[in-house]
Amino acid sequence: MTTPDPLSAISAKDQAEVLAKALPYIRKFHGKTMVIKYGGNAMTDPALQAAFAADVVLLKLVGINPVVVHGGGPQIESLLKRLGKKGEFVHGMRVTDAETMEIVSMVLLGTVNPQLVSAINQHGAPAVGVSGQDANMFMVTSRDSALGFVGDITKVDATIVKQMLDDSQIPVVATLGTDNTGQAYNINADTAAGALAEALGAQKLVYLTDIAGVRADKDDQGSLLRQATTSQLRSLLGSGAIDGGMIPKIESCVAAIERGVFQAHILDGRIAHVLLLELFTDAGVGTMVSKG
Amino acid sequence: MTTPDPLSAISAKDQAEVLAKALPYIRKFHGKTMVIKYGGNAMTDPALQAAFAADVVLLKLVGINPVVVHGGGPQIESLLKRLGKKGEFVHGMRVTDAETMEIVSMVLLGTVNPQLVSAINQHGAPAVGVSGQDANMFMVTSRDSALGFVGDITKVDATIVKQMLDDSQIPVVATLGTDNTGQAYNINADTAAGALAEALGAQKLVYLTDIAGVRADKDDQGSLLRQATTSQLRSLLGSGAIDGGMIPKIESCVAAIERGVFQAHILDGRIAHVLLLELFTDAGVGTMVSKG
Amino acid sequence: MTTPDPLSAISAKDQAEVLAKALPYIRKFHGKTMVIKYGGNAMTDPALQAAFAADVVLLKLVGINPVVVHGGGPQIESLLKRLGKKGEFVHGMRVTDAETMEIVSMVLLGTVNPQLVSAINQHGAPAVGVSGQDANMFMVTSRDSALGFVGDITKVDATIVKQMLDDSQIPVVATLGTDNTGQAYNINADTAAGALAEALGAQKLVYLTDIAGVRADKDDQGSLLRQATTSQLRSLLGSGAIDGGMIPKIESCVAAIERGVFQAHILDGRIAHVLLLELFTDAGVGTMVSKG
Amino acid sequence: MTTPDPLSAISAKDQAEVLAKALPYIRKFHGKTMVIKYGGNAMTDPALQAAFAADVVLLKLVGINPVVVHGGGPQIESLLKRLGKKGEFVHGMRVTDAETMEIVSMVLLGTVNPQLVSAINQHGAPAVGVSGQDANMFMVTSRDSALGFVGDITKVDATIVKQMLDDSQIPVVATLGTDNTGQAYNINADTAAGALAEALGAQKLVYLTDIAGVRADKDDQGSLLRQATTSQLRSLLGSGAIDGGMIPKIESCVAAIERGVFQAHILDGRIAHVLLLELFTDAGVGTMVSKG
Amino acid sequence: MTTPDPLSAISAKDQAEVLAKALPYIRKFHGKTMVIKYGGNAMTDPALQAAFAADVVLLKLVGINPVVVHGGGPQIESLLKRLGKKGEFVHGMRVTDAETMEIVSMVLLGTVNPQLVSAINQHGAPAVGVSGQDANMFMVTSRDSALGFVGDITKVDATIVKQMLDDSQIPVVATLGTDNTGQAYNINADTAAGALAEALGAQKLVYLTDIAGVRADKDDQGSLLRQATTSQLRSLLGSGAIDGGMIPKIESCVAAIERGVFQAHILDGRIAHVLLLELFTDAGVGTMVSKG
Amino acid sequence: MTTPDPLSAISAKDQAEVLAKALPYIRKFHGKTMVIKYGGNAMTDPALQAAFAADVVLLKLVGINPVVVHGGGPQIESLLKRLGKKGEFVHGMRVTDAETMEIVSMVLLGTVNPQLVSAINQHGAPAVGVSGQDANMFMVTSRDSALGFVGDITKVDATIVKQMLDDSQIPVVATLGTDNTGQAYNINADTAAGALAEALGAQKLVYLTDIAGVRADKDDQGSLLRQATTSQLRSLLGSGAIDGGMIPKIESCVAAIERGVFQAHILDGRIAHVLLLELFTDAGVGTMVSKG
Repeated sequence: MTTPDPLSAISAKDQAEVLAKALPYIRKFHGKTMVIKYGGNAMTDPALQAAFAADVVLLKLVGINPVVVHGGGPQIESLLKRLGKKGEFVHGMRVTDAETMEIVSMVLLGTVNPQLVSAINQHGAPAVGVSGQDANMFMVTSRDSALGFVGDITKVDATIVKQMLDDSQIPVVATLGTDNTGQAYNINADTAAGALAEALGAQKLVYLTDIAGVRADKDDQGSLLRQATTSQLRSLLGSGAIDGGMIPKIESCVAAIERGVFQAHILDGRIAHVLLLELFTDAGVGTMVSKG
Repeated sequence: MTTPDPLSAISAKDQAEVLAKALPYIRKFHGKTMVIKYGGNAMTDPALQAAFAADVVLLKLVGINPVVVHGGGPQIESLLKRLGKKGEFVHGMRVTDAETMEIVSMVLLGTVNPQLVSAINQHGAPAVGVSGQDANMFMVTSRDSALGFVGDITKVDATIVKQMLDDSQIPVVATLGTDNTGQAYNINADTAAGALAEALGAQKLVYLTDIAGVRADKDDQGSLLRQATTSQLRSLLGSGAIDGGMIPKIESCVAAIERGVFQAHILDGRIAHVLLLELFTDAGVGTMVSKG
Repeated sequence: MTTPDPLSAISAKDQAEVLAKALPYIRKFHGKTMVIKYGGNAMTDPALQAAFAADVVLLKLVGINPVVVHGGGPQIESLLKRLGKKGEFVHGMRVTDAETMEIVSMVLLGTVNPQLVSAINQHGAPAVGVSGQDANMFMVTSRDSALGFVGDITKVDATIVKQMLDDSQIPVVATLGTDNTGQAYNINADTAAGALAEALGAQKLVYLTDIAGVRADKDDQGSLLRQATTSQLRSLLGSGAIDGGMIPKIESCVAAIERGVFQAHILDGRIAHVLLLELFTDAGVGTMVSKG
Repeated sequence: MTTPDPLSAISAKDQAEVLAKALPYIRKFHGKTMVIKYGGNAMTDPALQAAFAADVVLLKLVGINPVVVHGGGPQIESLLKRLGKKGEFVHGMRVTDAETMEIVSMVLLGTVNPQLVSAINQHGAPAVGVSGQDANMFMVTSRDSALGFVGDITKVDATIVKQMLDDSQIPVVATLGTDNTGQAYNINADTAAGALAEALGAQKLVYLTDIAGVRADKDDQGSLLRQATTSQLRSLLGSGAIDGGMIPKIESCVAAIERGVFQAHILDGRIAHVLLLELFTDAGVGTMVSKG
Repeated sequence: MTTPDPLSAISAKDQAEVLAKALPYIRKFHGKTMVIKYGGNAMTDPALQAAFAADVVLLKLVGINPVVVHGGGPQIESLLKRLGKKGEFVHGMRVTDAETMEIVSMVLLGTVNPQLVSAINQHGAPAVGVSGQDANMFMVTSRDSALGFVGDITKVDATIVKQMLDDSQIPVVATLGTDNTGQAYNINADTAAGALAEALGAQKLVYLTDIAGVRADKDDQGSLLRQATTSQLRSLLGSGAIDGGMIPKIESCVAAIERGVFQAHILDGRIAHVLLLELFTDAGVGTMVSKG
Repeated sequence: MTTPDPLSAISAKDQAEVLAKALPYIRKFHGKTMVIKYGGNAMTDPALQAAFAADVVLLKLVGINPVVVHGGGPQIESLLKRLGKKGEFVHGMRVTDAETMEIVSMVLLGTVNPQLVSAINQHGAPAVGVSGQDANMFMVTSRDSALGFVGDITKVDATIVKQMLDDSQIPVVATLGTDNTGQAYNINADTAAGALAEALGAQKLVYLTDIAGVRADKDDQGSLLRQATTSQLRSLLGSGAIDGGMIPKIESCVAAIERGVFQAHILDGRIAHVLLLELFTDAGVGTMVSKG
């Protein structure tokens, strides 16, 4: 099959032990749906991307239903720059005018999504790209007319994602939405992942980030939380201890768990195979959020 | 429901007659799959696009399974120009280098496909965008290394399109392909439509074009053929009577019919609701191709 | 397929417009069940009967589930006369003795039902005759022993009609009933249609009649109601404004709507294709009854 | 449930023995389809009819799929007489003109069929009447234009009967047919039973008659055959040894067995519960026909 | 099939009558589940065992779902003796030490169960042996540590028995249980039968015993009860009128009926085919227990 | 879940690598059926038995369908001795008289099977014991009347095992058989495993043994074959190079592969988790047999 790695220093006995120890975890997650928000370095570093694609296929094969959700901030920035598009800003947020919206759509659906779909397909499980506009999955309203086509989700119809899971596919979801007139909107991918997890009644909601986990104090590396409850996180959000970029993730974790998702994880996507480590071994990585 | 049109000059009796006369056609096509290659003016004129989207939904509701296939030549040209991309040409054909391939993907998946999906969704039936890379639907090999990422289809796996039809969705297919390494390729949309029709065992393959139909002599407007056989078309192809842009369509019609598709149609997409006219009335529009 | 009618004065453009305008109606009624009480001229005029049979098939093909219900008053009268049967009357109502009951059964099941089944089958959809005695669909008790075998429905078991709809058939129901001993009874077809619509949870209950619709004043042609609520109709019934022959229809409309049927229609069966006009066009025909 | 019969002289031990001895027969016929042509005294004697209805229900409950087929010769004669209809004859066969055809339809569908359906329903299994015109089950052509609407079966589409069996119903089939124009025809019930058994791939074809079985010599009561092969019967048919009324039955037996029906039975319908005796006991009744 | 018994004194007419009279009973029990506790003489007398196996198959074929439950007291005693195993007793109950438990398992699963499975298979229906340990069907806790491996049922998971019924098999259940550590336990077969009937929502719970039925006074043969209510039996249990060996049966009957089982029967297993007599004839055998 | 092992010297990175490397193997075997003949030390050493039970559950969870087959030679010997049963021998083979047969049945069904079922259930997947007598799975004839109840398989009906796999259970099969009279027979477990693999169309047939694999020369430890073809093994069988105890295994491997099983494995059951090592790692253990 695959060529044995001559450098491998792991003994056969150790290999067997690692596999055997995965049993209770595999049994526990069998048949469960996991929504995985893909982003950060794992999206831009080719080796990490390949490891991620392989992990998602392994999850699928051992009976878990992974649903991958992604945005594409850096890639959007890059195309805007390339097209010489000067941004307009309102309250410090970029205005998404019609031209920007077209660029967002082109990047998410035409670049990020097919690359990830193709990478997963290469590992042997059928990945299928989905836009939040397909079958009106994400319905939105405009957040603020001054911001242009930035949408807030009003309704999630997860039917097509469920059908894909029934058809043994791996859905890869780009976070676009539609309003009542059929107009496309950009939506926050972290928030969309949480809303989709809720609509699917997922067991877990996982965020791949570029940090080691949630800190009780954003400036104290030693304050990393291995476990947190939703009420703890609410307090941290209230106290301003959470870093700006983490706020939508933390808010979505809390909201999703309060509406039925069992657990959420903030994982360090800079570690190769971090999904396998978190799900199938005793190694503690990142922050696990539970109800409480 | 809809507001009655006060200007309508069609009598109730005539309306009833038109509907009643559609019965034998609806009965005949019930449960059949039709692959419709969408392109030309119908893709760029908003009113024609809206009429097309409505027609596709009507086909779906009366029990036909439409599958829409599209490319996006003009939109690709436009973005290339906007990005100041200078083309390289080999034997008069544009070379698709990596940057061009990314642009093709962005236009097809990020612009053309979601616009059409959204337009169909607006008429009340669930349209879902599909890339030929999803679940490795179109597998390709490079046509010519000098041309870059231009692919020839080697295998069509129509499973996901069939599942979408089983799930009562309208698939809207963008014609990208994948090679064995996961690399994306551009493929001719006319050819891809024919190959998909064949893989689906479709009843009909329909091309929306900007011409009235096939002419026996490309320069003689009066030589329009209402009906043609595959052998007739083979002769015309051999004699050079077919206009360059029509060649892939005609070749795909002939190939598809010889591999099991029942009939093909070259329709004039400049006529609003041309699909309804061709399928559900006695009005003769375009050229119908049958085996022979 | 069908020969184009050379005399047709309806332009291709108009034909396309009529078909396209049917879309919102077809979408709206897709998958819904409609119980259609067939009677009056439409049952005795061959051209109207043929148009009715075609319309029912068209409804079936566009995804609606029509269920046809019929009695056969005029045909029963005719056979009674032919057999020289002198009627006995109680309170002005004909007594249904054993011999009359046999004649009713012969006419409904042996004449009216198979003719209609055959006419629908000719248009290409499988119609199947059903007697209310089959599988004990309509259970009845005697209305009044002085009237003989005239039954009032006590229970409707619509299982076989549902199975026929699941099997893609068009049920054509003759309104006979059975008591606990297995004895056959004659039942009012208008009432049976309403009871069946209710048991099926039908979307619509449609009566084909020989009048233009319900009048607010039975003697004033100009008082035709295009729309009516159940409470309006209750008032009219109380005030004596409703014509005798219409009373069972109006009462059944009101009862059915109050038990879950969404709308009822009193249509003028003397107009060819009146079903198509009412369901698929903006033309106002007859009276539509809604809850209120 | 049922009141114990105080006069019953059969001991408990004997009752248990009879039931236990039925086991191998019930096992053998489980899941098999049996077409039973009902006729003769069993159709006209109320006690025999009740016993027949009960037997059919018992067959159904023990896992056999009975399909009952009937004509109605005597009842047709009786109505013709009552209506003062004088018959015209060609070659000794009654001409079925339009009026006669209507009478045939009224008697079969309006009298014989609902009576039998109701009798079976009374024993607790759902019987459903079927006309050979329903869903175009029996397609026919005219036998001889001089004979009027007498049809020969050209095609049997047993779909609706199969669906009824899937839906756990007992189909009761009246033997009418339809030509390509939708016109009704009378067909020989014995022949129709054989054709239906063949179309259903039935295990057994059973004729209830008024005779003890097939005789090797029609005039010799002692020549009764308990078992016969198709080739034996062919010889008897050729030699003129078969009584006129039995010819269609015997011919149908032979034809059905040669096209896949496993066995046929000519039973004496004058014996109460003859079906149970033949199927579930060692008692020899009637003639069993097998391939050979 | 079976050779007619030349000595049979039962006339064909009587045979037909017995079969016809079974109809209302077969109709009544069709599709119902019956848990039958097999034991006593019927288990040790080869002729009675063969009759029982045949009866169970007949029940299955006429549409009833029999589930057979057995213990094996006498056979266990016999093997203990053969192995020279001296019993230890606590409060007069045998202590089930590890060695005894192994013997119980060997006898129930290795002797009694396969013999009965094989006997039923011989009559033509697929019997499948089931241990209460399979798929953790019977979960238990230790009754009393002094008694060793004697278990009380804490939970019944009847999934595998239901799947066997769905797969048209006859489950034959040996009454072993498992505790949380996977240790095997012996459980009272009468109690297990009642608990399983309850978990299956069975219609009937039947005990085959070596007595004629329940007596109001255990010492008065004339006090046999043909029918009893649960409250009557509760009184008898309270008053000490019930014989020791019957107590678990009577308690299980009462408990099962109070938790949804419709009726219970105490039958005399010494009568051949007692199941058929009770279920399909008017003959009164044993005691029937109903709610009250 | 499980307590992290503080002594574990395998780094998180190594653990992730081992799991990730299992992906291609899991993908390859997904949905495949594997028949595993369990025996030797793995059956008698409690730690190895626990590891085996865990491995079987892991196989099940990652989408493989394991079917476990076992005999029980040593345990049978032990009970025979305990019962003081003196064996009779014919041509060096033990005669299986009725008493011995009962002992075989008690050991296999009453001791070995439930122990293994219970051990697998403890790891969280539903194991169900199956006797080859259930539903007449293994039909046999006597090998030699002098040997008593030693059977050779004449027919395998794997229906119940397939149903168990459809019901997501792990079948654990004891190798008993039945002849036409219902008599139980002992059958060789190695042979039965091969026959069952063939009947199931299994992908793999795996033998757990107490040796390192097949040797080209039974006396030369260095002649271990890592891979062998069926023709190689046929030669070795012919040349007498195969050790006696291995002959039925090798013959069954060859026969099974020639009748459609894809591969067979002779594994060293003395190594803990040998199944995981062979199936999911690059470590070479035992001998793999392929067609050739």
